[in-house]
Amino acid sequence: MEFTVGQIAEVLRGAVEGDATQRIDRLAKIEEAQAGALSFLANSKYEHYLYTTGASAVIVAHSLVLRQPVAAALIRVDDPYSSFTTLLEFYQQASRTGRRGVEEPSFVGANSEIGENHYRGAFSYIGEGCRIGRDVLIFPQAYIGDRCQIGDGTIIYAGAKIYADTVIGARCTIHAGAVLGSDGFGFAPQADGSYRTIPQIGNVVLEDNVSVGANTTIDCATMGSTVIREGSKIDNLVQLAHNVEIGRHTVVAAQTGVSGSTKIGDFCVLAGQAGIAGHLTLANRTTVTAQSGVGKSIKTEGVFLQGSPAFSLRDSLRANAIFRHLPDLERRLDALEHQNTQPENS
Amino acid sequence: MEFTVGQIAEVLRGAVEGDATQRIDRLAKIEEAQAGALSFLANSKYEHYLYTTGASAVIVAHSLVLRQPVAAALIRVDDPYSSFTTLLEFYQQASRTGRRGVEEPSFVGANSEIGENHYRGAFSYIGEGCRIGRDVLIFPQAYIGDRCQIGDGTIIYAGAKIYADTVIGARCTIHAGAVLGSDGFGFAPQADGSYRTIPQIGNVVLEDNVSVGANTTIDCATMGSTVIREGSKIDNLVQLAHNVEIGRHTVVAAQTGVSGSTKIGDFCVLAGQAGIAGHLTLANRTTVTAQSGVGKSIKTEGVFLQGSPAFSLRDSLRANAIFRHLPDLERRLDALEHQNTQPENS
Amino acid sequence: MEFTVGQIAEVLRGAVEGDATQRIDRLAKIEEAQAGALSFLANSKYEHYLYTTGASAVIVAHSLVLRQPVAAALIRVDDPYSSFTTLLEFYQQASRTGRRGVEEPSFVGANSEIGENHYRGAFSYIGEGCRIGRDVLIFPQAYIGDRCQIGDGTIIYAGAKIYADTVIGARCTIHAGAVLGSDGFGFAPQADGSYRTIPQIGNVVLEDNVSVGANTTIDCATMGSTVIREGSKIDNLVQLAHNVEIGRHTVVAAQTGVSGSTKIGDFCVLAGQAGIAGHLTLANRTTVTAQSGVGKSIKTEGVFLQGSPAFSLRDSLRANAIFRHLPDLERRLDALEHQNTQPENS
Repeated sequence: MEFTVGQIAEVLRGAVEGDATQRIDRLAKIEEAQAGALSFLANSKYEHYLYTTGASAVIVAHSLVLRQPVAAALIRVDDPYSSFTTLLEFYQQASRTGRRGVEEPSFVGANSEIGENHYRGAFSYIGEGCRIGRDVLIFPQAYIGDRCQIGDGTIIYAGAKIYADTVIGARCTIHAGAVLGSDGFGFAPQADGSYRTIPQIGNVVLEDNVSVGANTTIDCATMGSTVIREGSKIDNLVQLAHNVEIGRHTVVAAQTGVSGSTKIGDFCVLAGQAGIAGHLTLANRTTVTAQSGVGKSIKTEGVFLQGSPAFSLRDSLRANAIFRHLPDLERRLDALEHQNTQPENS
Repeated sequence: MEFTVGQIAEVLRGAVEGDATQRIDRLAKIEEAQAGALSFLANSKYEHYLYTTGASAVIVAHSLVLRQPVAAALIRVDDPYSSFTTLLEFYQQASRTGRRGVEEPSFVGANSEIGENHYRGAFSYIGEGCRIGRDVLIFPQAYIGDRCQIGDGTIIYAGAKIYADTVIGARCTIHAGAVLGSDGFGFAPQADGSYRTIPQIGNVVLEDNVSVGANTTIDCATMGSTVIREGSKIDNLVQLAHNVEIGRHTVVAAQTGVSGSTKIGDFCVLAGQAGIAGHLTLANRTTVTAQSGVGKSIKTEGVFLQGSPAFSLRDSLRANAIFRHLPDLERRLDALEHQNTQPENS
Repeated sequence: MEFTVGQIAEVLRGAVEGDATQRIDRLAKIEEAQAGALSFLANSKYEHYLYTTGASAVIVAHSLVLRQPVAAALIRVDDPYSSFTTLLEFYQQASRTGRRGVEEPSFVGANSEIGENHYRGAFSYIGEGCRIGRDVLIFPQAYIGDRCQIGDGTIIYAGAKIYADTVIGARCTIHAGAVLGSDGFGFAPQADGSYRTIPQIGNVVLEDNVSVGANTTIDCATMGSTVIREGSKIDNLVQLAHNVEIGRHTVVAAQTGVSGSTKIGDFCVLAGQAGIAGHLTLANRTTVTAQSGVGKSIKTEGVFLQGSPAFSLRDSLRANAIFRHLPDLERRLDALEHQNTQPENS
C-alpha cells in the first residue's frame, strides 16, 4: 500500500508542512525510519530525532516549535500519538483483518447460524447448533465445537481450538493455536494408586473485549464455567485451569499459570511465568511480579507480590539483597563465634 | 437434554423422595444450583446446603437423616459421589464423545486401517500404514502421521498433532493442540560455534489410559522411545523431552518440563511449572512441588521436594521461613558486632 | 526398510568383518541393541558393550584393536560417530522428510509462487502473494498467511501457523503447532483502567538454519521485525515477545520466555524455563541456567547467570549452599546473642 503525505494528512485532518506529494509505504519509529516511512513525535524527549530522521514525513503536534530545519515533511495534528495509533489500526485492518467471505472447503454443522459480513477461511470447522454474530473472522483451520456462541466482531485466528459449549463475547481476539474448553485436570485417586477421570462438563465463558494469546490453554469448568471477564488480556502460552475466574481489565503475561478454582480480581497484573495455586482469591489491583509463586489468598487491594513463595515486593527485594551476600553473613558469624570462644585477655 | 427426576433415579437404581416428575436439564454444585439442576451431597460437612439449595433434585445417601425440611426432590442411593460421577460420565458422553461417523473432507493414506464405530472429523489427516483400533474418536483437523498405532477407545481432540511412528495405547485422551513425536532438541556444537542437527529417529509410546493435556509437547527419542506408562496423566503445556520415561500412574501438572533422558518413577506427582533436569532418575512416589527445579536424582521413595534448586520440602519450608526475615538476621548480626567491638566496661 | 550389512558398508565406504549378508532394519544404542539392529562404538569408554551387544552389526574405527571375540559383524570406518550420524540423517530423510508432491484438498491463494520439488500436505493453507522456495515441505494443516517468504529446503510441520508477512530463511525447521507472527502483547492503559489495543503491524524474520520447536510462539514486532538470526535453535513452548532479537547460533531451551524488545547476543545459551525481562541486552556467549530470571542487561561476554533474580552462577551457587542451612545460621546467631547477654563470670 502506498499513499501520499497529503492523503494521510487528510485522513488525520492535519496540516502539511513541506512536500505533500511524497509517497509513504510504511510506518516506522522515528529513530529507525528511512525514506518512504512515516513516523511520529509525541514525547519532547525524542525531539532531537526529528532533525536527523530519515523518515519522509513525521506527525507532530500543532504546538511544536521547531529549533532546527527539518528534512521530512511534517503533518501537524492535535495529538500525534493518537493520530499514529489510528494509522496503525487502519494498516492492520488493511493487511490482516479486512478479509471477508468464505474460502472452500470449510465445514458448518447443522443448525448453526453466522451473521453477515464474516470471513470463514479454508478448512475452518463450525460444529452444530452454534450462534455466531456479525463481522466475525474465522481464520483457516480454526475449530469451533458444537453449541458455541460467539459475539459480533470477534476474531478467531488460524488453528485456534474452541471446544463445544464455549461462550465468547463481542470484539474478542483469539490467537492461533489457543485452546478454549479442554478438560479440566481432574482425577480421583483410587485405592490401588491409579486415577479415575472426573468428567468435566462445564464450559469456558469469555466476556467482551477479551484477548487470548497464541497457544494459551483455558480449561472448561468441572461444572459451571471458567470465566474471563470484560476487557482482560491474556498473553501467549498461559494456562488457566478449570473453574478459574479472571476479573475485568486484568492482564496475564506469557507462560503464567493459574490453578483450579482460583479467582483473580479486576485490574490485576500477573507478570510472566508467574504461578497462582488453586482455590485462592486475589483482590482487585493485585500485582504479581514475574516468576513469582502465590500460595495464599490476597484480601487487601493493591498489593505487589514477589518470590516463590511470594510475599510483599518490598520485603522480597530486601531479602534478596541480603541473599546474594549470604556468604559474607556467614563469615561475619564465624568471626563472632571465633571471637567469643577466645579468652577475653588472651 | 432434559430428563425427569424419576428417569434419573431409575438409571441410578435410586429411590425418589418428593416430586419424581420434575425436569432436570443440568448438573451443578449444591451451593450454586438453581431450578432445573441436579446436585449431590456426599460430605456431611456440606449438609447445610441441602436445606437452602435451589436445585430441583439432590442425590443423597440412603443413610442420611434429614434434620430440616428439604424443598428439592431427593434421590436416595448407596454412594452419592459415585452415582453423580456416573451421571457426569453419561453427560460428557452425550455432549462430546458420543459422536460417530465420518465428516468430509478427511484424509486417509494408503494401507491404513481403522476399527469400527469410530469418528473422523472434517479435515482430519491419517497418514500411510496406520493401525487404529475400534471406538476411536479423531476430531477435526487432528493429524496422525505415517505408521502410527492407536488403541481402542482413544480420543484425539481437534488439531492434536501425532508425528509418524507414534504408538498410543487404549483409552487414552489426547487434547487439542498437543504434539507427540516432534524432534528431540539435539544439536552437536561445531568448532565454529554453530550447531549441527542430530537426527531424531525414535518415537513416542503411550501405554493405556494415558491423558495428555492441551498444547503439551512430547518429543520423540533420539533412538528408541520416549515412554509414558499406563495410567499417567499429563496436564496442559507440559514439555517432555526426548527419551524421557514417565512411570505408571504419575501425574504431571501444567507447564512442567522434564529434560532429556530423565526417568520419572511410578505414582509420582510433579506439580505445576516444575522443572526436572536431564539424565536423572526419580524414585517411585516422588512429589515435586510447584515451580521447583530438581537437579539431582532421587533414590529414596516417597520424598517431597521443593525449591529451585530443590531439596526436601521440610527443610525448604524452614529455610524459606527465615529467608523472609533475612533483614532482621542481618540487623541482629550488626548489633552483635557492634557489641563486641565496644570495650567490656565502657 | 531393510538393508544388508554389506550395503550399508558400501554407503559408508567401510570394510566389513563378519557376515556381510546379515539384514539390518533399525538403528540402536549399543547397550540396547538387539538382533536386526546396527549400532556404533565411538568412545572407548563403552568398548565393553561391544563384546556383549545383541546388535547384528556395529560401526567401529579402523584403529580399534579387539580384546575379545565379537558376535556382531563389524563395519570399519575412519570416524564411527560421523558415519552413524550420516545413517541417522539418511533414515530420517527416508521416514519423514523424503515426501514430495501435493495432497488434496490444499489451498493456495492468488499470486503465490512455490518452487519445484516441494510437498504440500492435505488441508495446508498458503495465502496470497507468498514467495516459497524449492524443496520446501509443508505438512498437513500448516497455515501460511499472505505475503510470506520461505527459503529453499525449509520444513513446516503439521499445523504450524505462520501469520501474514513472515519471512523465513533457507533450511529452517518449524515444528508442529509453532506460531510465528501473532500480535505482540501491547495494550495502552486508559484513564478508566481498561486497555486499548496497540495495533501490531511488524513481522517475524527468521534467518537461515533456524529451528523452532513445537508449540513455540514468536510474536510479530509492533513496528519493524522480531528477528531470529542464522543458525539459532529454539526449543518447544518458548515465548519470544514483540521486537525481540535472538543472535546467531544461540540456543533457547524449552519453556523459556523473552520479553518485549530484548536483544540476546550470538552464541548464547538460555536453559529451560528461564525468563528474560523486557528492553534488555545480553552480550554474546551469555549463559542463563534453568529457571533463572534475568532483570538486568549483561554487557560482558561469557557470563553465567543463575537465580531469580539472576546473578553470577558462582555467587548464586555459594548463596544457595548457605540458604539451605539458614536454620543453622539462625541457631548460631541465637547462641551468640544468648552468650552476650550472660554476665562474663556467671
